[in-house]
Amino acid sequence: MATFPDLDSIEKQELNLSAADYSLLTDLYQLTMAACYTGEGVEQRRASFELFVRRLPENFGYLIAMGLAQVLDYLAKFRFSSSHIAALQATGIFAHASESFWSLLKDGCFTGDVWAVPEGTAVFANEPLLRVEAPLWQAQLVETYLLNTINYQTLIATRAARLRDVAGEQATLLEFGTRRAFSPQAALWAARAGLAGGLDSTSNVLAALQLGQQPSGTMAHALVMALSAMAGSEEHAFTAFHRYFPGAPLLIDTYDTIAAAQQLAAKVNSGEMELTGVRLDSGDLITLSKQVRSLLPGVSIFASGDLDEWEIARLKAAGAAIDGYGLGTRLVTGPPVNGVYKLVEIDGIPVMKQSSGKVTYPGRKQIWRSPTVGRKVKADNLALVDESNLTGKPLLELVVKAGERVQPTASLQEIRQRTAAAVASLPQEIRRLDHPATMSVEISAGLQKLTQETQERTAKDAKGAK
Amino acid sequence: MATFPDLDSIEKQELNLSAADYSLLTDLYQLTMAACYTGEGVEQRRASFELFVRRLPENFGYLIAMGLAQVLDYLAKFRFSSSHIAALQATGIFAHASESFWSLLKDGCFTGDVWAVPEGTAVFANEPLLRVEAPLWQAQLVETYLLNTINYQTLIATRAARLRDVAGEQATLLEFGTRRAFSPQAALWAARAGLAGGLDSTSNVLAALQLGQQPSGTMAHALVMALSAMAGSEEHAFTAFHRYFPGAPLLIDTYDTIAAAQQLAAKVNSGEMELTGVRLDSGDLITLSKQVRSLLPGVSIFASGDLDEWEIARLKAAGAAIDGYGLGTRLVTGPPVNGVYKLVEIDGIPVMKQSSGKVTYPGRKQIWRSPTVGRKVKADNLALVDESNLTGKPLLELVVKAGERVQPTASLQEIRQRTAAAVASLPQEIRRLDHPATMSVEISAGLQKLTQETQERTAKDAKGAK
Repeated sequence: MATFPDLDSIEKQELNLSAADYSLLTDLYQLTMAACYTGEGVEQRRASFELFVRRLPENFGYLIAMGLAQVLDYLAKFRFSSSHIAALQATGIFAHASESFWSLLKDGCFTGDVWAVPEGTAVFANEPLLRVEAPLWQAQLVETYLLNTINYQTLIATRAARLRDVAGEQATLLEFGTRRAFSPQAALWAARAGLAGGLDSTSNVLAALQLGQQPSGTMAHALVMALSAMAGSEEHAFTAFHRYFPGAPLLIDTYDTIAAAQQLAAKVNSGEMELTGVRLDSGDLITLSKQVRSLLPGVSIFASGDLDEWEIARLKAAGAAIDGYGLGTRLVTGPPVNGVYKLVEIDGIPVMKQSSGKVTYPGRKQIWRSPTVGRKVKADNLALVDESNLTGKPLLELVVKAGERVQPTASLQEIRQRTAAAVASLPQEIRRLDHPATMSVEISAGLQKLTQETQERTAKDAKGAK
Repeated sequence: MATFPDLDSIEKQELNLSAADYSLLTDLYQLTMAACYTGEGVEQRRASFELFVRRLPENFGYLIAMGLAQVLDYLAKFRFSSSHIAALQATGIFAHASESFWSLLKDGCFTGDVWAVPEGTAVFANEPLLRVEAPLWQAQLVETYLLNTINYQTLIATRAARLRDVAGEQATLLEFGTRRAFSPQAALWAARAGLAGGLDSTSNVLAALQLGQQPSGTMAHALVMALSAMAGSEEHAFTAFHRYFPGAPLLIDTYDTIAAAQQLAAKVNSGEMELTGVRLDSGDLITLSKQVRSLLPGVSIFASGDLDEWEIARLKAAGAAIDGYGLGTRLVTGPPVNGVYKLVEIDGIPVMKQSSGKVTYPGRKQIWRSPTVGRKVKADNLALVDESNLTGKPLLELVVKAGERVQPTASLQEIRQRTAAAVASLPQEIRRLDHPATMSVEISAGLQKLTQETQERTAKDAKGAK
């Protein structure tokens, strides 16, 4: 394996990402393709790529679009430094690339347009979450980062929206996933997308502070074990913790949940302790929560431990006495959202991919959401941007024009409200946890016609008959 | 929701992680517990925590320990800046914490010991991947980051080792997961752990450069679509790309895989083109790869598209003519490794958790790997550190002593070799993809005795009978 000179702008060892290195957070082929475009003199041709999913993840009836804020941050800071260029040259991979490719990188930044649905919008299969219209080399190079950002945050926001939908407005939903998230940055992004999707708060201190939110948390078994071993009893541990954090929920399942609840009830009833909440992290949550509720009637009960939307539905159906849920592993890991980013138009020519099972629709598109029936969305129309006669609301908005942002940043609170409204506007059968119905996305007459024409023309292109 | 003053040391908006902010990448309760320990005057008591999994993920017969390098980096840089402290104070959560807590954070760094199995070691359920022995407040605060790091990289390294085991030494295995990884940093860590676990290279340019490796890649459908639309044919696209990257594999499934292979074969046979490889990303890979092999006999065939160890096994069993595999979505996402970090000893007192279904073994432990039979591992012994009479090799090594590293950093190449040797040393039934056998981990007489004693003592502690 080859080794390369140290690069001072690239953080090594930690494998953290600095905004200064955004441009290298890409797949190699994006750079080799950009070099090829430049060599062929087509790098500045206007290209349009759309980001969408071909299929929703299993048992998902909708997606909540999320991650645009980080896309916009990335595009604004997308630059190649001289040390980046030197590092790329040192690989030897670009030995046949033209000098103009390096000039392009050296002077380049993102100068294109971006159309996107606002964060917190519900979208369905084949509907673009965003479209980049930019010089070909730029639109190509940004693919990897855009997919990474949108795929993950959309997954988390959708899971959060489902959790909120199942748990109800009154339940407290806490994001506890940092220890199981796939890298520290994944934890930060999960916190953001989770809060924007409907959770109340995160235990991740850095994420909370970066997002201007209050972090939340209870206590861990370690404290109970440490203090009861050194000071003599679980009761000592509880009393000590409440001395410094009088409002904090106590974790009562380290040894014997009911015994702990009985001890606390005695203290609460005698006026010795003010207790606002307890947490259960193991055992039969249905039985235990009911017993704890009867022992500690005025106290909030939080549950945690491999919870997800299905488990919450099961607990609620069984009448568990739970006021809040800590969501960790099953929120931040699991099957992904498989967004793709496909060229739909180049230099004014609509294009489409025809690989078996992976056909895409050509041309630049707009989503029209139908007038709601009884405040529920009935169907969407997917149409070409220049088609008229469509009714409803167009969902894709211009957010970046010629490299400059043209819309203000939405606050987390605004996005959260948009998400809640989006979910509320969907028919119940689309919101089902299992085997949800499929939202009807009608393909406009214009898009159908273009698809057929492009298919025919492409068949000729492929054979070189043109 | 509360808002807080801007913090100049905390990167906002991007939600990236800088090493300067490591100490805040934690769950709130680690900080509240540390404040409680300080208030009670026990923050400096020696605590030992062990990191292990209770169960292996479904269908995993072993784990390959990974992520220690990032743990050590984190511990070395773990500091609270004055702006971190100000930010914590501004939350109001610590209103009752003592002044000595803030002094502790202000002056503190990691001064403990770390014992760990080397990266690339095979481990099983209940075996500690590492143990932290440190002042209680430090050992507690580092939990979240350590779990995050080890859980994710161990997952990826194990998946990579399984992929290598199934694909065989001759196959080329490429890490292509960046667009589906859970955040950009997850992509960087997946690349590291994947290479250390047995993959050949990554398409992630930044990861490759940070790791001193050569990035790899082929080309995407977008290039074929763009150039064939503008220049007239797929053939133009291939010729153009080879002008700048003559050794690069061509992606031949954009329109018609076999038609593309026939065109390329004509050029190769006429001496017009030197072709080293092609990539197939869709369709029936078994049939297509065989057809392409017969058309282009000297050319490497790479396959991609939702591949994993099971799919590679299926392709190989069916005699697919595939020389290399691109691994993306199914490598970098999916079910996690659920490592936990549990207090096992405090101030010389062994402790254990007894929550239902979540019992842990008390005391500081060592793993003894038995003398190999026919070069295969027969069984492990899990024993207390001070037990004698154990045979085999002790796996946990002292890597940090009083806050200082006492072992050199292993190179990616060394870890990769260690991983390969570790997998080779396991019996075939442990390496099976489905329903692997369970490695026997015997609990030493000393550990059994201590577990029973601690259980009895803890039952008394919980009731406060001491």
